[in-house]
Order: sequence, then C-alpha cells, then structure tokens
Amino acid sequence: MSYPANPRDIQLTAEGQLKHFLSISGLPKSLLTEILDTAESFANMGEQSVKKVPLLRGKTLVNLFFENSTRTRATFELAAKRLSADVLNLDIKTSSTAKGETLMDTLQNMEAMHADLFVVRHADSGAAHFIASQVTPQVAIINAGDGRHAHPTQAMLDMFTIRRHKGDFAGLKVAIVGDILHSRVARSQIRALTTLGVEEVRLVAPNTLLPAGVEDLGVQLYTRMEEGIRDVDVVIMLRLQKERMSGALLPSESEYYRLYGLTNDKLAYAHPDAIVMHPGPINRGVEIESAVADGPRSVILQQVGYGIAIRMAVMSMAVSGQMQERSQIS
Amino acid sequence: MSYPANPRDIQLTAEGQLKHFLSISGLPKSLLTEILDTAESFANMGEQSVKKVPLLRGKTLVNLFFENSTRTRATFELAAKRLSADVLNLDIKTSSTAKGETLMDTLQNMEAMHADLFVVRHADSGAAHFIASQVTPQVAIINAGDGRHAHPTQAMLDMFTIRRHKGDFAGLKVAIVGDILHSRVARSQIRALTTLGVEEVRLVAPNTLLPAGVEDLGVQLYTRMEEGIRDVDVVIMLRLQKERMSGALLPSESEYYRLYGLTNDKLAYAHPDAIVMHPGPINRGVEIESAVADGPRSVILQQVGYGIAIRMAVMSMAVSGQMQERSQIS
Amino acid sequence: MSYPANPRDIQLTAEGQLKHFLSISGLPKSLLTEILDTAESFANMGEQSVKKVPLLRGKTLVNLFFENSTRTRATFELAAKRLSADVLNLDIKTSSTAKGETLMDTLQNMEAMHADLFVVRHADSGAAHFIASQVTPQVAIINAGDGRHAHPTQAMLDMFTIRRHKGDFAGLKVAIVGDILHSRVARSQIRALTTLGVEEVRLVAPNTLLPAGVEDLGVQLYTRMEEGIRDVDVVIMLRLQKERMSGALLPSESEYYRLYGLTNDKLAYAHPDAIVMHPGPINRGVEIESAVADGPRSVILQQVGYGIAIRMAVMSMAVSGQMQERSQIS
Repeated sequence: MSYPANPRDIQLTAEGQLKHFLSISGLPKSLLTEILDTAESFANMGEQSVKKVPLLRGKTLVNLFFENSTRTRATFELAAKRLSADVLNLDIKTSSTAKGETLMDTLQNMEAMHADLFVVRHADSGAAHFIASQVTPQVAIINAGDGRHAHPTQAMLDMFTIRRHKGDFAGLKVAIVGDILHSRVARSQIRALTTLGVEEVRLVAPNTLLPAGVEDLGVQLYTRMEEGIRDVDVVIMLRLQKERMSGALLPSESEYYRLYGLTNDKLAYAHPDAIVMHPGPINRGVEIESAVADGPRSVILQQVGYGIAIRMAVMSMAVSGQMQERSQIS
Repeated sequence: MSYPANPRDIQLTAEGQLKHFLSISGLPKSLLTEILDTAESFANMGEQSVKKVPLLRGKTLVNLFFENSTRTRATFELAAKRLSADVLNLDIKTSSTAKGETLMDTLQNMEAMHADLFVVRHADSGAAHFIASQVTPQVAIINAGDGRHAHPTQAMLDMFTIRRHKGDFAGLKVAIVGDILHSRVARSQIRALTTLGVEEVRLVAPNTLLPAGVEDLGVQLYTRMEEGIRDVDVVIMLRLQKERMSGALLPSESEYYRLYGLTNDKLAYAHPDAIVMHPGPINRGVEIESAVADGPRSVILQQVGYGIAIRMAVMSMAVSGQMQERSQIS
Repeated sequence: MSYPANPRDIQLTAEGQLKHFLSISGLPKSLLTEILDTAESFANMGEQSVKKVPLLRGKTLVNLFFENSTRTRATFELAAKRLSADVLNLDIKTSSTAKGETLMDTLQNMEAMHADLFVVRHADSGAAHFIASQVTPQVAIINAGDGRHAHPTQAMLDMFTIRRHKGDFAGLKVAIVGDILHSRVARSQIRALTTLGVEEVRLVAPNTLLPAGVEDLGVQLYTRMEEGIRDVDVVIMLRLQKERMSGALLPSESEYYRLYGLTNDKLAYAHPDAIVMHPGPINRGVEIESAVADGPRSVILQQVGYGIAIRMAVMSMAVSGQMQERSQIS
C-alpha cells in the first residue's frame, strides 16, 4: 500500500481537531501538545482508586489485529475500558478473511455494526491510512503499528515520558539507539521530537541498521555509542529484532551488545541526569544491561502506565472529533 | 441428533411468549412480527451517539461456539453489550470437553454459574434444540446456526431488511439463489417468508445444489437464473461453499459464476426496484459481481447493522419470557 | 520455585485482613469463616434477577493463565464481572514471553498498567507465591492453581458446599477419594478441613496415588474404599488424571473404577445423609457412576455456582485489604 499524499488532511477535521490518529507526520505541534495535556489528567487518574470515566460510554471499539501483539492489544483494551467503551477483539487471521472475504468487506462489516473506533495493527506500511481513507467519517481509526512505518501512540507515550521527567522539550538532546532500520517506532519518535522542538535528535546504530534517507529527517548520525550518547538528556533504546541478526552484514548478538548494549559504563557518557527509555519488551543482555533497565535512571516501567493515558487521550479526542464533524454534516 | 417433534412448545411459554429462539419453524406470524417490531427501535438506536440500553444489565450471556464463526460471534457479543449484558466467550474445542467432559456436563456447569442466555453455534443439526430440551427453564437458548438445519437470527435479519425496504410482505416475489443444499440459512428463510405471507418464494439453483424434498415447502423451483429472478422484488444470494465445488456433479467456480453469479446483466431481469441481499461474507466474482454488491440496489451492508438489532430483539425477548415463566412457577 | 517460609505474612495485612489469596496454609480459622460468610451473600444474589454489585467498579482484573483452564478462567471472569470489574484475559503462552520477555517483566508491565488484581494459573508449584512476593503491595494476587501445590479457591468452594449442606464443621467425617498424588486441590482441602475443625479427614487411594509425607497432615489413610467411606458425612471425589494411568504401578482405568469408582453400592457404606462432591469435570464411569453424579445426594452442580460466590468473596476482600494497606502507607 502506498503512503497518502497529505497526512494532515486525513487526520484532522476542518477545524483542526483530531479525527484519526495514523501518524505523527502531518500533525502540528499544538495538537501533539493537546494530546500530552489530555493524557496528563488520565495519568493522574491511574493512581487513584476508581480509574474509570464515562467519556466513551455506549461507544464500541474494535481491536482489528492483523498481526499478533498481546501487549499493545492489552493497553488499548484497558484504555478503552477505562473510558467505559465496549471492546470487541478481532484476530483477523482466524476470521472470515480466511473464507475469501477481502479486507474492505471486513471493514465495511465492522462499520455497518456501528463501531465508533477501529484500533488497527497490520504488518503492511500504510494499512491504517488506507483504512482511514476508505471508511465513512463515522469511525475513528487509531494506528497501533503498521509495518516499519509508524507506531504513533508509542511515540506519543515516549514524548509524555520525556515531558514528565524533563519538563520542557526545548534544549533537550535525545539519542535513539539500536535497530532503527526495522523499528516501527523510530520514525514516529523522530517526527514527534522534531515537531515538539528538541534541540537535537541523534541516531546511534551500525550503518547496516540505518535506513536509507534517514539523514534527511534533520537528525545527527552516530555509529559509535560513546560519542552518540555523550551529554544527551534522554537515551531511547530500541528493541532488537533478534530474528533479523542472522544476515552476513549484521553483528552477532554478543558483538551487538558489546558495541550498542546500554551498560552503566556506556551510560556514564550521557548527562548525569539522563533518563533511559525502552518500548519493551526488553531483551536483557542484548540491548540493555539489567542493572540499567532496573536502575534509578530507567523510566521503562513508567512508560507502560503512561501508554494507557496516551491511548485514552487519543481515543477520546478522535471520537470527539468524529462526532463534531458528523454534527456539522447533518 | 434428531429434530424434536414440536418446535412450537419448546420455544414459547404457555402465554405464547418467546423463551428460546431455535428455529423459525413453529413460530406464528404474530411472534415474527413482534421480533421485527422490537428490532425496529434498536435499529434506530444504532444511528445514535449512545447505543446502549440497560435491558439486560446484570445478565450473563455465554457464547457457546462449537465451531468457529468470528462474524456471528461478534454480532452477538456486540448486541449483548448494547443491552448491557456481560459476555463470556467459550470456544468449546479448546475447553474441557477435550478432557473427557460431555456436552451435557459443560452445559450444566454453565447453567450452575447462573448464566441467563446461551448463544449456541454447532455443526450438528438440532444441537440447539437438544440443549434447549435439556436445560432447566432458567436459561434462554439462541440458535446461532446448527449444521444445515437452521440459522434463524440470520433469516430474521433478512426479513427485517425486506420490510424496511419493501414495506409489506404481501405481494412480494422473492428469489433465493445458489447453494440451497449446503445453506443453513435457506430453510429458515423459506419458513419465515412463507409465514410472513409473501406471494411467492422461488429457489434458483442447479439440481445438484437443491436438497431432496424442498418442493414440499411451497416454493417454486428454477434451474435457469434468468427465469428464476424475472420480476422478483427481492434477490437473496447465498454464499457458495467453495470447498464443496469439487464433486463430479458440481459446476466449476467459473461455470457457476456464468450460470448463477449475479451480474448487472442478470439483475436486469428482476423488477426495476428489486433489492439484492447476501448473508456475507461475499465471494466476489463467484456468486456476485462487485458492481452489483457495491451498487445502488444492494442492501448487503445494511443487513449487517440490522443483524445487531435483530439479535438484541431476540435476546431481550427470550430473557423476558424466561423471567415471566420463572415468576409463575415460583 | 521454592515455597516461601511464612505463608501467613505474605497473605495478610498487619491487621490480619486478606491481601493475597495464595494458599489455605497460613490462614486462621476466623479468616476462612469470614470468606465463607462473605460468599454467602453473593451466593444468594446468584438466584436473583440482577446479579451485579458495584464493589469493584473501576478496578481491573488480569487473568494471567500460564496454562489453559477454560472452566477456572470462566468462573473468575464471571465473578469479576458480577463485581463490576473490568477483565483482561492474557494467555501467556502466546504473548510476548515468547519474544524473550521474562515472567518478571510481564508482571511489572501489568502492574504498571495499574491492574488491581492478578488471577494466576501456573504449572509450577509456588508460582503465585513467587509473584506475590515480587509485586508492589498495590496488586492483589489470587492463586487459581499452581502445579500440584494448591488450588485454594476450589478448596474454599468445597468448604462452602459442606457448610451449606451440613451446617457446622464440628463432628463431620470427610473422605477424600482418588488421585491424591496428582491433585492440586487435595492439599488445600485437607488444610481447610483441618483448620475449620472437622472431626476426621480420611484419604482413600491406592498407595501409588498417595504422596509421601501425607500422614503428617493429621489424616487417616485407607486403601479400601468400603472402609474409607464408612459412616462419612461427606465424600469428596477427585478427578482422575487419566493420562497418568499408564505407569506400571498404577491400576488400569477399569480396575480403578472397580476399586475406587463411586457407585451407589459403595455409597451405601457412607452415612445415609452423606453428600457427594467432585471438582469437575467428571469422568463418568471412571471415578464416578452417572447414577451417583446425577443422583439425589450429589451436590456437584451446586458447587459450580458456589465457586462464583467464593471467587467474588476472595477478590473483593483482597482488593479491600490492599486498599487499606495502601492508605496506611501513604
């Protein structure tokens, strides 16, 4: 599937409200900030005894997972339930697509059931965009990861984490370390960090794990870890796709750990207050040392809780945008 | 399992209220009309912003699926949640039946958990009847498809579709086209159409896809599509069970499409206002042309939404009938 | 995993309230009685039309099932929904543990999502204890069966059944019959019966199905069924793990039935008012005759309904204990 020409138009209403959440690309700084501000109130709620609000009561979310991801599915399901929505989980591999139904027929069927939100996870880049461009304006589409292209709720929870722990984006140096090539989140992170105005985004990886054209995104490239994380305020480790470490040009797992694994020794090059982030699940001893992952500068577990808050924010904002647009059409 | 002698007695209370929904057979016209009227209010609700009513709050629905059907399961789950019921999905193949428990033990266990509704999908004809005849009168049984026998909620959503688009049943000519032999819905449709008083029901299929004895049901048989759909008001296409097209007496897929596939050319033989229906999922280019499926006379997607409303109607009516009967016993 | 030294400390707050429910061992008689009393009100509710209370509204239960058990999972899911909790089912075999994540990482992630309750089923003895000893004091852990070690909610529903049908524990003779060796529930039953003060607990089994050291638990051992159940008030049959009947020292299935299968003939040795219990699912004709299982002295189906009530009691008490402890810490 090809990437649509104008990612702004498809995601926003005429008034600039969110109506789909497909990629960071095309969203202005003010909207990203609105997402972070909305998530703030939900994040505080998570600490409380009753964690439920009736914002999406009577609404139906359908988790359309074309590839398996227990953790991502669970966070969306939890977030939806805390907004009082009803949740339908559809594992599409085992459904009627196997009986010859096309993707479009499946979608139109879900739409005809008056679902309000589709959370889409798909192995093909652009799948969520394609779906959003095809459905009627009554269903909000949330991209939960498509191919190597985007994973925008993960990127936004990372932004939320940075703002919580560092206050402001201005003046921050952020390093993204590891398998940029196969990461569906790195592109979204770069776009979000740039839009929110950090001082510097650095990519740290062997040349074989850097995608072509990445230098056009306004980032600094480093192949040596010690240089790449020197004086940074935030270290974002990426998950290594172990199954991809067999190619001739790629380092072995132990070689990778020696060069790019985040140990306390390497972390000493970063700013003394630097925080360490990771999207999970962690490969301990491959991309990160347990002493760092469980250490005082790691905010990895906090990220998980923030992820619920970000998903609540994005879902409630998109449904609200859809409703506004509909009320103006009719 | 054998078909029970009196399908009326088992489905209705002494006062004639619905208490199980197993087959169209045995249900009077007045009750079918009551189901359609009840569904009408739920169908209108589907367009609204809050789609939830507290009719089954505190009630438990158990989806007992002995064979996989994602779409049917999803519609019942959604319908139940919109009635505020709690839903428990049990895929029986992976459950304790594998550990040597009999079907009856499974049922009695569910019953002992104070479930209020069983939605049953089973490959054996009569399974839902068997279950309804065995459980105590506290649990309403809804047949979600049993073998080749019946799929009564699908038939009722078809009736709902016809009434919505054609107003009255009297005077209508309806053609059912395709694989009548393997269809679990055709029998239910024929029974419902006859009970509701359409003028004429036609079956259009090759002789090899017509079951024995079907001529006794008060229908007209046609082997030529052009004759069969001439002047009809409603064309109901059946899904072709592709995997069954390998027998020596059966046409090939392309041959079938040439003879019985619904194209705009063939549709020209029907009444100019004829609507086109299909239970889904569609085999495009096998039983129907995309131009027809997506065309102005197709009501295929509307059927899906109506399916939620019909299931809400049947479930709330059956639970209500069970409660009335129980209150009279005690 | 090794069994922790002090099962009382880990399960109770400083004030003696339940905060985890891991094993009967370590719980005083007063607490077991409190569980039974709490379940009593929920059991009565099960008969009523609305079976839902808002006790756990806004709380999240995560079913962490490391081994499959449809029936147990279903009873916890139902119990949680009747307490108005949100339920997330996680089948851990298919989740991210397969991607290299450790158990602890999975748990910490669930915890970071602000779950309130984990229901844990695991093949390893002591898994639930291990988890409870690792998580922060914000999450209540309920053991839903770990290896051969414990299945305490099953044992408590058995105690509930006995109290409902026999009134008081004092003076009762109870026989546990069958595969004690492989049973995860027998140990919990023995402990609960002893704590609640029955007069006599008897184990009836071939020597090859008795675990070493069982005589230290204050029980009477019998290898002959007729002697073992003579004059008892309660006969608890255990499920036979058929797949384990192949060993050289074990009897064949038919031989086992002849010696230990509960028939009406053998039941005649028990007290005339004796009740017959079984955790289900039943192997008819292996450990019990159908005439007994479905007969007037069987309370097997009632046990299932009581199981919902016991699980509701344990879950609401543990969450309440966690909240009290938290409010005192902060």
